[in-house]
Amino acid sequence: MASTLKTILFFSIFTVFFLSRVSPKPHPLDSLTPSEFLLVRAIVNQSYPTFTHKLSFQYVGLEEPDKQVVKSWLSEPSSQPPPRQALVILRLNQQTRELIVDLSIRSVVSDKLYSGFGYSTVTTEDQEAAVDLALKHGPFLASIRRRGINISEIACFSQTIGWYGQMKTNRQLQVKCYYLDGTVNSYLRPIGGITIVADIEQMKISKYVDRAVIPLPKAEGTDYRASMITLPFGPHFNAAPPKPPGQTGFKLDVNVVSWANWKFHLAFDARVGPVISLASIYDAEKKTYRQVMYRSYISELFVPYQDPTEGWYRTTIFDSGEYGLGNYVVPLEPLNDCPSGAVFVDVYYAASDSKPVQVPDAMCIFERHSGDVMWRHSDVKREITETRPDISIVVRMVATAGNYDYILDWEFKPSGSIKFLIGLTGVLQVKAVPYTNTDQIEEEVYGTLVAGNTIGVSHDHFLTYHLDLDIDGDANSFVKTHLIRKRVKDENIPRKSYWNVEHEIAKTESDAKIQIGLNPPELLVVNPNKETKFGNNVGYRLVPGSTARPLLAIDDFPQIRAAFTNNNVWVTPYNKSEKWAGGRFVDRSRGDDTLAVWTKKNRRIKNKDIVMWYTVGFHHVPCQEDFPVMPTLSVGFELKPTNFFEYNPVLKTVPPQHLSWPNCTK
Amino acid sequence: MASTLKTILFFSIFTVFFLSRVSPKPHPLDSLTPSEFLLVRAIVNQSYPTFTHKLSFQYVGLEEPDKQVVKSWLSEPSSQPPPRQALVILRLNQQTRELIVDLSIRSVVSDKLYSGFGYSTVTTEDQEAAVDLALKHGPFLASIRRRGINISEIACFSQTIGWYGQMKTNRQLQVKCYYLDGTVNSYLRPIGGITIVADIEQMKISKYVDRAVIPLPKAEGTDYRASMITLPFGPHFNAAPPKPPGQTGFKLDVNVVSWANWKFHLAFDARVGPVISLASIYDAEKKTYRQVMYRSYISELFVPYQDPTEGWYRTTIFDSGEYGLGNYVVPLEPLNDCPSGAVFVDVYYAASDSKPVQVPDAMCIFERHSGDVMWRHSDVKREITETRPDISIVVRMVATAGNYDYILDWEFKPSGSIKFLIGLTGVLQVKAVPYTNTDQIEEEVYGTLVAGNTIGVSHDHFLTYHLDLDIDGDANSFVKTHLIRKRVKDENIPRKSYWNVEHEIAKTESDAKIQIGLNPPELLVVNPNKETKFGNNVGYRLVPGSTARPLLAIDDFPQIRAAFTNNNVWVTPYNKSEKWAGGRFVDRSRGDDTLAVWTKKNRRIKNKDIVMWYTVGFHHVPCQEDFPVMPTLSVGFELKPTNFFEYNPVLKTVPPQHLSWPNCTK
Repeated sequence: MASTLKTILFFSIFTVFFLSRVSPKPHPLDSLTPSEFLLVRAIVNQSYPTFTHKLSFQYVGLEEPDKQVVKSWLSEPSSQPPPRQALVILRLNQQTRELIVDLSIRSVVSDKLYSGFGYSTVTTEDQEAAVDLALKHGPFLASIRRRGINISEIACFSQTIGWYGQMKTNRQLQVKCYYLDGTVNSYLRPIGGITIVADIEQMKISKYVDRAVIPLPKAEGTDYRASMITLPFGPHFNAAPPKPPGQTGFKLDVNVVSWANWKFHLAFDARVGPVISLASIYDAEKKTYRQVMYRSYISELFVPYQDPTEGWYRTTIFDSGEYGLGNYVVPLEPLNDCPSGAVFVDVYYAASDSKPVQVPDAMCIFERHSGDVMWRHSDVKREITETRPDISIVVRMVATAGNYDYILDWEFKPSGSIKFLIGLTGVLQVKAVPYTNTDQIEEEVYGTLVAGNTIGVSHDHFLTYHLDLDIDGDANSFVKTHLIRKRVKDENIPRKSYWNVEHEIAKTESDAKIQIGLNPPELLVVNPNKETKFGNNVGYRLVPGSTARPLLAIDDFPQIRAAFTNNNVWVTPYNKSEKWAGGRFVDRSRGDDTLAVWTKKNRRIKNKDIVMWYTVGFHHVPCQEDFPVMPTLSVGFELKPTNFFEYNPVLKTVPPQHLSWPNCTK
Repeated sequence: MASTLKTILFFSIFTVFFLSRVSPKPHPLDSLTPSEFLLVRAIVNQSYPTFTHKLSFQYVGLEEPDKQVVKSWLSEPSSQPPPRQALVILRLNQQTRELIVDLSIRSVVSDKLYSGFGYSTVTTEDQEAAVDLALKHGPFLASIRRRGINISEIACFSQTIGWYGQMKTNRQLQVKCYYLDGTVNSYLRPIGGITIVADIEQMKISKYVDRAVIPLPKAEGTDYRASMITLPFGPHFNAAPPKPPGQTGFKLDVNVVSWANWKFHLAFDARVGPVISLASIYDAEKKTYRQVMYRSYISELFVPYQDPTEGWYRTTIFDSGEYGLGNYVVPLEPLNDCPSGAVFVDVYYAASDSKPVQVPDAMCIFERHSGDVMWRHSDVKREITETRPDISIVVRMVATAGNYDYILDWEFKPSGSIKFLIGLTGVLQVKAVPYTNTDQIEEEVYGTLVAGNTIGVSHDHFLTYHLDLDIDGDANSFVKTHLIRKRVKDENIPRKSYWNVEHEIAKTESDAKIQIGLNPPELLVVNPNKETKFGNNVGYRLVPGSTARPLLAIDDFPQIRAAFTNNNVWVTPYNKSEKWAGGRFVDRSRGDDTLAVWTKKNRRIKNKDIVMWYTVGFHHVPCQEDFPVMPTLSVGFELKPTNFFEYNPVLKTVPPQHLSWPNCTK
């Protein structure tokens, strides 16, 4: 569910030229800049003048150069970078067009009509239009009067509606309305019993049902502002110790972060949010940076609600493909969202007129001192204790999908590990019911009574990461290391069993579809052409975290659209066009362009440039503690070097020089 | 593998009386004090004078009072606490005796001969005796000469040998020897090809085989001391910011920790290490502390190695039952093992003469500022951002089991969650082989070539936690919340499926044996007699982490002894005598006194005082990064309040008052 308001900064033509002049030579993977968004606008408007066309920019983002082009530029960064191009998805006169705009030659180099199923991400204007239609719809106003509530205290949000086997689909959004009147929490007083669907192409309400008047949940207890809390107060805490001034610990060179032994490029995209590219780690032994990850981002986020009744069955959301995770970005609060010493970065995305929207402090980068231990060993006999405190660097963005807040972290550790962490907080999507105690409930309610008249509806979250690993080069293989129980054959040995490993190299895509179960194999991406000096293939291992699997029927429409969640892991050969696991046109899609479909080609993946797709999943049965704002629930996974280095890459670190709190009276 | 040296502090009789006088009235769950160990010694020596008896204290620990006795004292803490008693396990004239010693009346109140299978934890003296026997064994000295190495550079360690179906077992230990000669790393230059088994009752070598001379791994690259590192150095780091002086953030009242909304009792035991009892959380709404966890500790730690050859098949270690996790405790290094602001606690255990051994700085308690977010929500439309930084309190102990270092953390969060974390670091157990590259290997080697001539042997770690939860009172039930896929029945709804929850209350122990697989149920302990105001049963949910399952054959001897790892979760009715999942006498045990055996009684567990047992497991296929000291691998699990509170218990916290780095020039 997306909020509909964003601050739009207007840039004049003067600004365009000004910014174009001062910006340094861009990195080929840099996000589009404000001036580039305006340039896209100018170029597209030349082809499609707005006074003759009904035109909306559904998506504007970097059309990334081919990987080989980027790598060739990287090998000689003083050379001319590849031309800057933008991928533009237009809604033009009720048709969808995909354009490639070349910013260097200032022209549209490709312009295709899309005639397949589904639509691109909805815009803020689309969402506002749906809400406006609802708020002006006579029967809705009558419903409000019937409930005796005040129209000026109503906040409505639009939501995508999915696809349920219809032969013909239009661009439609459902509208869900909430009551404020004594609360600032926009999501906890749902006005139940009403279905509103708006056609945002025909600009009319296409479905309206008022089934029943259901008691409104109370405003009391829903506020979450510190300034408004009432007794009893929660516990008080110390603040984290501050960093000494100026000590960020890392270098940020335009968009390239260098810290300890890591280096990576940071970008932002309206559809997927943060994009981390070209992560490489310095190998002190080999005296060089070694490639680990070419590109990683959250390719799709699928959130199906588990209430099949009229007002709720449509709520099966694809946040990246239908809204854009990047469009959800919110400013971060220094010291509370990101600790002392954090550096904040602004981001920009295109509004539906391709004017840039600036979000200040949208991402932060900080050193994390977790209080954990990086490694240690005590040898009491030899009176040795060597211990190294843990430290890492984190890139954080928060995507607020209306009610929910997703805290998206990329964490790099000097040991070579990369952790991908999702913190889930914010407000539940709730449903109004007549009940104030579970003992009154005699029907299925599809969730938990988390407050009076309030069901927290059960749902799932599936985040599918695109992980284009390049372990020490492009040509990689995916290896399943099976742990196999064996019987002892030697008659002189009284023990009966042990386990040993068997490596299976995936030859094709179907060998690499993994559901992680009771005793899963260890999953590695290795470079079959590079060995350590002891003969092990250099590699990185996937360490799974929470791996809940979909429970919807495989032939159910939402699950057909989300078939990319049917396995926890998939591996594909690199293909620049396969960016988004749910497909390019996800709103009302029919699942004909997903990762699950692509991999039916069963392409060869052995010793190829490959991409791993990993889905973090979790089922959420709400509980009262999730009301009115959920304590953060964290899930994630890790990529861990496995015979990538010759030995522990943090062995030869020394304990840091510990600081004392300055004593100003001295 | 346990190191054999500890610093023993000698206490005079004067000290006993001195300490007895000044110590405050003890909490019934306090660990035995130094003076109490000496008092035990004096009382036992009265019954069994050492000039007529061969006597060794294998274990001395608190004999904890019955739970109801403790609870009744807690309800009136000014009343006389229950009498202090010690559980003493003696090896006396080649027999095992179990004594209960009452310290208040200064006498042995129970003294039983143990005639079952297995022996108690081995002592330092037992281990040293085995090593001494080996180092004086003629054939061993000949083997050393044959290898042309220097006896004075040899470090040997003893190890338990398990049980493999023998009808008769003696107290025996195997001895593994390593070469130093240019390294201080005691575990990376194994002298291969030799089996030594020592009978520590008969005081003789019972088995000696020298199968083959295997090349010694090199000393080069095995040192891990900061003072000795050579180029190339690893990355340099900033230290964590220091806390302002005096700001620990919590109160430590003898052994009771109070912090934020939490309160718990901290103790230490030679067998299990840290013991956290009486954890309760303040409910601001109910204006009272509410019980969560009566007692929790690591009941057993099973580490089977997966090499079935003569020199290795016996290496299937039960660290708690055979050595004592507490006996492994090492001093912690301020700022590196535990961050700024940590408070350190000394612990004591009994040597084999029941004199107290002091380990300074053995546990630490600190506030963790992880850099994460406790909860947040942004409402862009209403221009609200509320965000609260995460904070928690951690209790940490490190158990160095010879080569491995286990970092054992208990973390309490203000949201009510308790996290149990294990960090695994230290040195691998390795085996010498003739190979310097994998391409030379044409046999099974049961591990990874992690360095020249060095196999890191594959193995598992299974930590079984004893979790005596008392959710808002003693009488609790264990609930499996199944997530069930259902078909949509309403013909007007085009969606086909959804999931809903079905609660199954475990009636008996067999209903509560859980293997966590692909789509596990949610597992809760609830108080069926207490409801929230909306009618949900108050409860806590187990959030599993790494759940690797045993791969040994179920009928293999080590797995019979470790049958308590066959399920990830078990639930038993509270029984004071069922403390240790592997049984009381684990060394050479036959698996006839394990959790798996107890639960065969299939006792009733519904609405009873119950104990949950959870096993954290992981398979370790070593990699080169684990050499010569492993970067910490972290695993764990969480207990999370679920309808325990009426609403988010950290909602009504305010962001902390952030501090700035003092500017002393002002």
